[in-house]
Amino acid sequence: MAEQPEASVLFGVFNETTEHEQRVALTPDIVARLRKHGVTCMIEHDAGNAAQYTDADYEHAGATVSDRSTLLAQCDAFGFVSRPTPDQIAAMHAGQWVIGLLGSFTDNAYVASLQAAGLTAVAIERLPRQLSAAQSMDEMTSQNSVMGYKAALVAANAYRSFLPMMTTAAGTIRPAKVLVLGAGIAGLQAIGTARRLGAVVTAYDVRPASKGEVESLGAKFLDLGLDFSQGQGEGGYARQLTEQEQAAQQAAVDEKAAQFDIVITTAKVPGRKPPVLLTSAGVAALHRGAVVVDCAASALGGNVEGSTIGTQVTEGGVTIIGAPTLASEVSNTASNLLSRNVADVLAHFVRDGQLRITPGDEIDDALVVAGNTAEPSDESEKEGQ
Amino acid sequence: MAEQPEASVLFGVFNETTEHEQRVALTPDIVARLRKHGVTCMIEHDAGNAAQYTDADYEHAGATVSDRSTLLAQCDAFGFVSRPTPDQIAAMHAGQWVIGLLGSFTDNAYVASLQAAGLTAVAIERLPRQLSAAQSMDEMTSQNSVMGYKAALVAANAYRSFLPMMTTAAGTIRPAKVLVLGAGIAGLQAIGTARRLGAVVTAYDVRPASKGEVESLGAKFLDLGLDFSQGQGEGGYARQLTEQEQAAQQAAVDEKAAQFDIVITTAKVPGRKPPVLLTSAGVAALHRGAVVVDCAASALGGNVEGSTIGTQVTEGGVTIIGAPTLASEVSNTASNLLSRNVADVLAHFVRDGQLRITPGDEIDDALVVAGNTAEPSDESEKEGQ
Repeated sequence: MAEQPEASVLFGVFNETTEHEQRVALTPDIVARLRKHGVTCMIEHDAGNAAQYTDADYEHAGATVSDRSTLLAQCDAFGFVSRPTPDQIAAMHAGQWVIGLLGSFTDNAYVASLQAAGLTAVAIERLPRQLSAAQSMDEMTSQNSVMGYKAALVAANAYRSFLPMMTTAAGTIRPAKVLVLGAGIAGLQAIGTARRLGAVVTAYDVRPASKGEVESLGAKFLDLGLDFSQGQGEGGYARQLTEQEQAAQQAAVDEKAAQFDIVITTAKVPGRKPPVLLTSAGVAALHRGAVVVDCAASALGGNVEGSTIGTQVTEGGVTIIGAPTLASEVSNTASNLLSRNVADVLAHFVRDGQLRITPGDEIDDALVVAGNTAEPSDESEKEGQ
Repeated sequence: MAEQPEASVLFGVFNETTEHEQRVALTPDIVARLRKHGVTCMIEHDAGNAAQYTDADYEHAGATVSDRSTLLAQCDAFGFVSRPTPDQIAAMHAGQWVIGLLGSFTDNAYVASLQAAGLTAVAIERLPRQLSAAQSMDEMTSQNSVMGYKAALVAANAYRSFLPMMTTAAGTIRPAKVLVLGAGIAGLQAIGTARRLGAVVTAYDVRPASKGEVESLGAKFLDLGLDFSQGQGEGGYARQLTEQEQAAQQAAVDEKAAQFDIVITTAKVPGRKPPVLLTSAGVAALHRGAVVVDCAASALGGNVEGSTIGTQVTEGGVTIIGAPTLASEVSNTASNLLSRNVADVLAHFVRDGQLRITPGDEIDDALVVAGNTAEPSDESEKEGQ
């Protein structure tokens, strides 16, 4: 860092157009950080507004604020919260780089379109998370962490009672009982936040390793009386359970859930239909006033049977919040973390002042899914991570 | 408690009709508690719905669920979250009791209407809070406590960044800086809740005694460099400052507030226009993304100049939430506490199975503002508490 290489890579970030997206893939503090790696930044007008950064903030940090067509014409690489739209791809030119969550595990046609456009595509979802060098690039971890925090806040705010125990002259209010289903990064952050607020927290995950993680945060691990050994899938995600296992798990969770005031479900599996962790029978067994927050709610369904995007109250008085955009709602912190991740991915590929792929580099081999200097990745082999 | 006196007092609670009121002055668990004091309960249909209690819950607890006119005809006493409407007063008959926050310090005409109707009126706002026997009756403390908790949650939920510090592989997110203005019961609970969530909290109150209370919760006391000694008013409320003091205080607070991410103001003074604690200049100095929650927002104004009921975002990107009904929004816990308070007030007046006033009893003398067996209270003497 002592010598600043000449800035020769131009990195562009668009105003994200996805509905409900409030994040931005570049925050002003990252502009100087990238400059040290020989990267100059250009950002589309108003791109940071929803994350509370003005165009003036970016200019003050040393970025150029410009319009969409200038970015498309001039930039060497683009960073995304998610991925470029088909329109954006059509407007790019061969040799440009795109960095984001490209959905490459499930959307081969999309990857083919990037390849056909002559773009070099860096798919962050393929990050080898076990490498220490990759950890600062881990957008999924950072965003899931924000999601878990917000899930606990949203649940607490929707719940009509106290989370902490409260002792008054007129008597004692018992603390809320919170159940977190799915104890990955998001689940662990939800556990921590609910515990901070004074709730008594229990959690469950099919991965046996999660028991220790849950207990290390001071939460109880839900004992379903079932054995799903070898539940850990590749890449740190929960494997899909067999139908029989799922049925047994559902019945047990549904039964146990009835004793809780708040249920938070966090078992998103990127690009796939999320597993159902609480059935309609489980929801029906919850008491009047219980709150369910389903972070995996989507058009494909969620972790909670019958959950929809938004808030609904059942006839039994249970509030179900389908909340697929929780990280985006904490737009400032989420963008800060995200832009660091994206910038570190970008910086990894800046070699001698140029964007370059090094075949054989573990990160390069994992991330690059389209591009003229690397072999296209083998989808059939990577599918299942 | 060993012998259960014959139930001879019939206590009624209506479905509260005030807009945005979700609380109820009787919860099912209190029905059995009152029975031990010789009180039978009757509640209007659907009165507990918004607090998540069904008519069946009340019936199961031993209360009679009935309609408005039956309550009006049969009950010996009525409990209110706030106070009876003029229509309700007109429909009551002489000799019935009403218990609630009657606004007796500021609304002499209302108290006169209760007296004219021949009602016995018990004004909880007059509770001698320093008496230990009165503490379990202290509705204002219990509801302000709920308000402070909810104010911190609402602020955290509206803030687009993290409250806790967060350390990730890509860097550290600093904790949010929260300023609580007004360190009464509500302010102290807001401090505690914001600290639970990981924020760094500073607080201010004109009462010198509050400094120790603030610091005992692990928050800093804001040093304005000003001396408002003898700031403690009667009855535990902040006294009104002189104009000169207010101007000096405002200028200092406005200047200091600029360094905070979240400002929560809690200086409600019952029945009076709340003091301004943050002027428009102070709001204008806050950074983009800052959140202000004004618990004192009302038709008379709030603690924040220009605050209105509801959420507004200033041109400078500051979110101001005018939130006068926060306790009501935590309807279940708030009702549980409130109904205990009201029930303990009622039980205080049940003597030998009858509702009776004992002249000379400190609580009786303080609370009864209308009724045929007690002297009407002297308004001019009590005004100013």
